[in-house]
Amino acid sequence: MTPEEAQAGLDARRAEIDRIDLQILRLLNERATAAGRIGDIKKQMTMAIYEPKREEQVFRNVLDNNAGPLSENAVRRLFERIIDEMRLLQKERNSKEVQR
Amino acid sequence: MTPEEAQAGLDARRAEIDRIDLQILRLLNERATAAGRIGDIKKQMTMAIYEPKREEQVFRNVLDNNAGPLSENAVRRLFERIIDEMRLLQKERNSKEVQR
Repeated sequence: MTPEEAQAGLDARRAEIDRIDLQILRLLNERATAAGRIGDIKKQMTMAIYEPKREEQVFRNVLDNNAGPLSENAVRRLFERIIDEMRLLQKERNSKEVQR
Repeated sequence: MTPEEAQAGLDARRAEIDRIDLQILRLLNERATAAGRIGDIKKQMTMAIYEPKREEQVFRNVLDNNAGPLSENAVRRLFERIIDEMRLLQKERNSKEVQR
């Protein structure tokens, strides 16, 4: 592999990663919107916001379907972060509504 | 909204989230594969593995294209986790090869 070929290979992979990232970003925002609707329903019905059993289902869903190369632990950490951010967004939305 | 309607709404949103999660999972694994190829090229060419400038580009790409509802800080934290996991996977791969 010449340095030029190496650089072309890096550039191609990076362009691929940038495209993948925008797809991930779009899906994360879609997920946040869907989670927000769940929050709205729960609030309207005065249901419990936090349901550990549902969280288990979320992990089961992704862990049962993980083809790799990411490890089970990596997938778990990634989805912990995702779930945390959704919960934080929901909290921020709720506290803004209280302020209004 | 009756309790039955609320439950149906929750079930529909959760099914949507489960589908979104599997798409996110697939893209995360695709991203890990692309990052692995970058690592292979760099190793073959004995190039620096860690490039802070590239990391800035990755954040710029997603932050410039974030339509919300996730905040800029949320997107940054999510992609920090993603980048960290890719780097960890790469480290694990490299240390396995040294052991062989």
